[in-house]
Amino acid sequence: MPARWLKLTIAYDGTGYAGWQVQPDKPTVQGAIETAWKEITQENVRISAAGRTDAGVHAHGQVAGLITESRLSDVDLLRALNAVLPNDVAILSIEPAPEGFHATRDAVGKHYRYHIHNGRVPSVFDRYYAWHYPQPLDVAPMHAAAQSLIGRHDFSSFETAGSERPDSVRTIWELNVTRGVQDSADRITIDVRGDGFLYNMVRTIVGTLIEVGKGARDIAWSAQVLAACDRRQAGQTAPPQGLFLVEVEYE
Amino acid sequence: MPARWLKLTIAYDGTGYAGWQVQPDKPTVQGAIETAWKEITQENVRISAAGRTDAGVHAHGQVAGLITESRLSDVDLLRALNAVLPNDVAILSIEPAPEGFHATRDAVGKHYRYHIHNGRVPSVFDRYYAWHYPQPLDVAPMHAAAQSLIGRHDFSSFETAGSERPDSVRTIWELNVTRGVQDSADRITIDVRGDGFLYNMVRTIVGTLIEVGKGARDIAWSAQVLAACDRRQAGQTAPPQGLFLVEVEYE
Repeated sequence: MPARWLKLTIAYDGTGYAGWQVQPDKPTVQGAIETAWKEITQENVRISAAGRTDAGVHAHGQVAGLITESRLSDVDLLRALNAVLPNDVAILSIEPAPEGFHATRDAVGKHYRYHIHNGRVPSVFDRYYAWHYPQPLDVAPMHAAAQSLIGRHDFSSFETAGSERPDSVRTIWELNVTRGVQDSADRITIDVRGDGFLYNMVRTIVGTLIEVGKGARDIAWSAQVLAACDRRQAGQTAPPQGLFLVEVEYE
Repeated sequence: MPARWLKLTIAYDGTGYAGWQVQPDKPTVQGAIETAWKEITQENVRISAAGRTDAGVHAHGQVAGLITESRLSDVDLLRALNAVLPNDVAILSIEPAPEGFHATRDAVGKHYRYHIHNGRVPSVFDRYYAWHYPQPLDVAPMHAAAQSLIGRHDFSSFETAGSERPDSVRTIWELNVTRGVQDSADRITIDVRGDGFLYNMVRTIVGTLIEVGKGARDIAWSAQVLAACDRRQAGQTAPPQGLFLVEVEYE
C-alpha cells in the first residue's frame, strides 16, 4: 500500500490530559491517539496537530495530520480507533489530505471559544469547562473593548514569555463577547477567530477583558494594552479549563 | 436558638455517586451534604429530598428539607457549605420553609429532562450527561407518541417492578421531545413535567419513545403500552446518565 496523507478531526475533553503534545510519563491527547493508531494498524506514526493545546484545554475540532500505509479504509479506521480510544477522546472524521499536508503549517485560521461561569455559586456541570468568576461582569463594555483587538497587530502584550515563535504579529478577524439567555444567563462566551494565536494569547485576552467587565478598567484600556507591546500591561492569563479549540480552517 | 425549617435547592453531577440516598460504604449526595452540614454546624441532621435520584442521575434543582438549630444565617450557611462540599455538589439556595415542611410529601410537581446524544460518534463532553444512541431517530413521531401519555393515568407499564409505592396513578402535564439546532443538532431533549413519577418512569418513557423514533413502532403504540398496565409491553429503561431533575414545584 503506498503511503497516503490523512486529516483527522478530533474532539477531546482535556481535563485528564497534560495537554496535546506527547510528554514522557504523562497522559497526553497525542499519545492516546498514537497508541490507538498503533493498536489498530501496528504503525508507529507521529501525529502533528494544528494547535498544541495546554493541560486542561478542550477541543471540539482539533485537526491533526499523519502519513499511513494502512490498508484499512478511512471509515474502518474511524470506527476502530474510536472503539479503542478512551471515552474522553473521539475522532470525528478521517479524510484524505493532499500530499505533504501539515496540520500546523497549512492552517489558515482558528476559532477558539472561552466560557466563563459568572454566577455566585460554582456550577457543578461547568467545573471542568468554564472559569468560575463570581464577581458581576458587564458584557457590553467587554465586547466593546474587544473590538480594539480586531485586525492585524503585534500581540506581544498578550503572549506569555518563553515562546519560540519568531514574530508576534497576528490577525484577529472576529472577537465577540456574549451572555447566554434564560437558563444560561450566568454563562459568558468569548468567541475569537483569527489567522493564528501566540502562546496563551486567547487566555490573556480573556483575562484582560475581565478587567473591563468588572469595571476596574474602561473600554479604551484594551487598545492601550495592545499598543504597549508589553505583557505586564495586560490582565491575568485566564485558567485553561474554559478554553475550547472549536475549529481549524484550511484553504 | 429555636428549631427552624429550611428548604435547600441543590445541583449535583451524579456521576460519582451511588444516587441521592444514604447507603453504607457508598458515596451518596445525601451523605455528602449531611457530612458538610455536620462539619459547619456540628449538627447531625437527616435531610429528606423531593426525589431520590438513582446512581448517575443528575440534578439542576433537587430540593431537600431539614430542621436546624444553627445560629448561622442562611447566607452564611450557604457560603460555608459550598466551601466544604465536593465540587460536584452545590447548594444553590437556602430559604426558610414553613413549619413541618417535608420536601417529598409537599412537592406538587417535578420537571425532569433527559438528554440523548443522537450522533454517530460518541460525544466526549456528553459521555456522562446523555445516552449515546447512534441509530438515527426521528423526533416528530417521538413527540407525537409522547402526547398520548399526557393526563391522569395508571402508569404501571412504565414502573420498574419492586417499587413500594401503593398506587401507580400519576398526572403528566407536559411531555416534549425536541432536537437541538445548529451545533446541537445531535442533541435530543425530552422534557417532562407532572405531579409525581413512579420508579424509573421517566427512563422507561424515554426507552419507549426511542422505539417510535427509530421506526420500530408507530405513533399509536405508546397509547397501547399505557393501556396495557404491563411493564413488559414498554421499551427498555434508558440509562441513568441522561436524566436530570430540573425543578421541584411547591404550592
